[in-house]
Amino acid sequence: MRMYDIIQRKRDKHQLTDEEIRYFVKGYTDGSIPDYQAAALLMAIFLNGMTDHETSVLTLAMAQSGDMIDLSAVNGITVDKHSTGGVGDKTSLIVAPCVASLGFKVAKMSGRGLGHTGGTVDKLESIPGYRTSLDRQEFIDNVNRIGIALVGQSGNLAPADKKIYALRDVTATIDCLPLIVSSIMSKKIAAGSQNILLDVKVGTGSFTPKLEDAVILAQKMVDTGKLAGRNIAALITNMDVPLGNAIGNSMEIIEACEILKNKGPSDLREVCVELSAYMVSLCTQDSYENCRRKVLQSLMDGSAFEKFRQLVSAQGGDVAFIDNTDKFKKAFYTHDVLSSHSGYISSMDTANIGRVSLMLGAGREKKEDSIDFDAGIYIHAKTGDSIKKGQLLATLYTNRKHVLPDAENEYLSSLTFSENLPPPQKLIYQIVK
Amino acid sequence: MRMYDIIQRKRDKHQLTDEEIRYFVKGYTDGSIPDYQAAALLMAIFLNGMTDHETSVLTLAMAQSGDMIDLSAVNGITVDKHSTGGVGDKTSLIVAPCVASLGFKVAKMSGRGLGHTGGTVDKLESIPGYRTSLDRQEFIDNVNRIGIALVGQSGNLAPADKKIYALRDVTATIDCLPLIVSSIMSKKIAAGSQNILLDVKVGTGSFTPKLEDAVILAQKMVDTGKLAGRNIAALITNMDVPLGNAIGNSMEIIEACEILKNKGPSDLREVCVELSAYMVSLCTQDSYENCRRKVLQSLMDGSAFEKFRQLVSAQGGDVAFIDNTDKFKKAFYTHDVLSSHSGYISSMDTANIGRVSLMLGAGREKKEDSIDFDAGIYIHAKTGDSIKKGQLLATLYTNRKHVLPDAENEYLSSLTFSENLPPPQKLIYQIVK
Repeated sequence: MRMYDIIQRKRDKHQLTDEEIRYFVKGYTDGSIPDYQAAALLMAIFLNGMTDHETSVLTLAMAQSGDMIDLSAVNGITVDKHSTGGVGDKTSLIVAPCVASLGFKVAKMSGRGLGHTGGTVDKLESIPGYRTSLDRQEFIDNVNRIGIALVGQSGNLAPADKKIYALRDVTATIDCLPLIVSSIMSKKIAAGSQNILLDVKVGTGSFTPKLEDAVILAQKMVDTGKLAGRNIAALITNMDVPLGNAIGNSMEIIEACEILKNKGPSDLREVCVELSAYMVSLCTQDSYENCRRKVLQSLMDGSAFEKFRQLVSAQGGDVAFIDNTDKFKKAFYTHDVLSSHSGYISSMDTANIGRVSLMLGAGREKKEDSIDFDAGIYIHAKTGDSIKKGQLLATLYTNRKHVLPDAENEYLSSLTFSENLPPPQKLIYQIVK
Repeated sequence: MRMYDIIQRKRDKHQLTDEEIRYFVKGYTDGSIPDYQAAALLMAIFLNGMTDHETSVLTLAMAQSGDMIDLSAVNGITVDKHSTGGVGDKTSLIVAPCVASLGFKVAKMSGRGLGHTGGTVDKLESIPGYRTSLDRQEFIDNVNRIGIALVGQSGNLAPADKKIYALRDVTATIDCLPLIVSSIMSKKIAAGSQNILLDVKVGTGSFTPKLEDAVILAQKMVDTGKLAGRNIAALITNMDVPLGNAIGNSMEIIEACEILKNKGPSDLREVCVELSAYMVSLCTQDSYENCRRKVLQSLMDGSAFEKFRQLVSAQGGDVAFIDNTDKFKKAFYTHDVLSSHSGYISSMDTANIGRVSLMLGAGREKKEDSIDFDAGIYIHAKTGDSIKKGQLLATLYTNRKHVLPDAENEYLSSLTFSENLPPPQKLIYQIVK
């Protein structure tokens, strides 16, 4: 078999054989296939597509390119979730302990983030002492003992994805459905959980602004997960508006704690309840109504928060910070953004608000960049709110004073106003099974 | 400007700007753009195409990526030819001295060949002593003094083409019209002649088996040449049958000498007369009939051969070999291929006959391979000939005895027979201006 022929066949719109796809993944991972041949194939895949069968073979080959986490030593039903990513999305911090408090085993590995804020493990690291790197034994032990572990991704989890993603990133082949599906699903499959709920975001702050594209992506990921023998579904949720009010690393930990303490913004709470209910339903085949009831109970009776305390404690974090979130350090500079308009906020360019958060220091532009845990945005008014001129829209937090004028302008340019009340936002669009 | 954006724009079927194309050629040539980004762009060009304008900008940028040969020191009218390549194509060896003998200046650089035989300079090197590498001054001096020089391509002629071609060769992006056009024409334009005749081959032994594809290729090359300010035309000629009877390096030199001595196979003679006449016509704007008459005169009165002698002598070759071609060493093994059929030869798979020649040692499979000057095929019967069982079809010459059984089988499998006389072959299809 020759890589040249594989490129040529995809170039000529043929379906690749299982052997050809595995040959490519193995050869590219071990370095015997050079970047330039992989780049030519990726562009041919971008332009000529892949069938569902090809996508699932690619996904499995990528999953099997490194460690396949073996959760057979975990007693109980394992469940994982994955979000396609959005602004203010701290749902994992809430959903994972909530579901674990109901007796399901959440052995979760998260990546670090590029973009508006860090990823889940970056956020957790804003809690002093929290260790995001556990060895295999401690990881499994914690899951067996308290039902939950939240760690960074193992270095050798789907190494094929790491190489392919890095190449896609510099060859304009990111935005391609079979490659997106295989990238996300290879890691989820390698991470070992039997039950998987995907949270596919749709809207201006996601990479699928259109509902129909989000549904197609969700369906392809679900189909691929099923072909890999997993029990899987996807919830399509709103990302036209930032989720909750807080954007930033420690700020999102604080807001997650509020929800777990049965307070906090209602949109975030509702999305977390839905995600948790569908995760429990996946694990038990119990009715959605029963599962939702159990989830609400766990939030209200404090068992979800207690599970989060156990998690933080087991991984070395200082629980005093989550018991009293006033202990988190504040950014040195704060700036209130006031409205120069009166009227209803009719839309928010959520991706742009994410960029403001990045300017303030909350995210990484490049892998090597460090994150400022204290930086971020607190949003006081969202789409549908009625605003008077001079009213407080958001507060910016940063340790980089010089960015504040630009950040304020960018924030303001992200909002549009109307005289009439805009149609209400839908939080949950649909479930894809 | 970023290479990423250029890839993305071509991926999305946009026309690249002149600046973007020049940025790519310059950056890839100087190494600042990596292979993998160039590979992604080439695949996007392969699948989404390039306009005529983009192709001409690419061609000029590639021509200007290295030395532009300055022929302004040549007194007289400069003329060049280029063939897209075929089996038994030794026309340059005949046409160049013929046209030079009529007073036009042929300052010709040729590449080495990959495939069935060597290129023109490899063939010339089978003449003992012939130097295919002259310094710039000697090259120009010879052209001024005797009207002709035939040398290998300068190391720095269109280096962008060298890099891009090598990458296309391993990324399945060879067979792409704008890339073929820019590859051929960048070198021709950099080589400096004002008048250029292209010989575009069509048939089983060429890389454009269909006439309509050959015409499109010819027209694109002619248009590109004109945009670069050259006086250019293309002749579409037959490559369904090997040209002449000899395939191989010294064997083709011998056959070229026969034509220059007013003997040799009529198909080869006729194609050379046509090519020479159109070259003269390009240079003078004289009528085709007048030019053809002059060419025939030069072949008949020996002035074309005399010019070839002067060329060989000026470049250090032993003219005794071309005066008496029996002096050329013969391959150690010869083998007669006899027919097992009776009937008319109805077609020849000319590309396959080329592969037989390669098996015998006459060509290179890889750049590093050495060529056996003595190896080759002498063809005794061609399409349209009436054959009796047992009749001699071809003689194989090689220094590799072990390949003879396979070579004979392959040769025989290249021929098809019919009971009825097949329609006659057209030698020249059309002129494209």
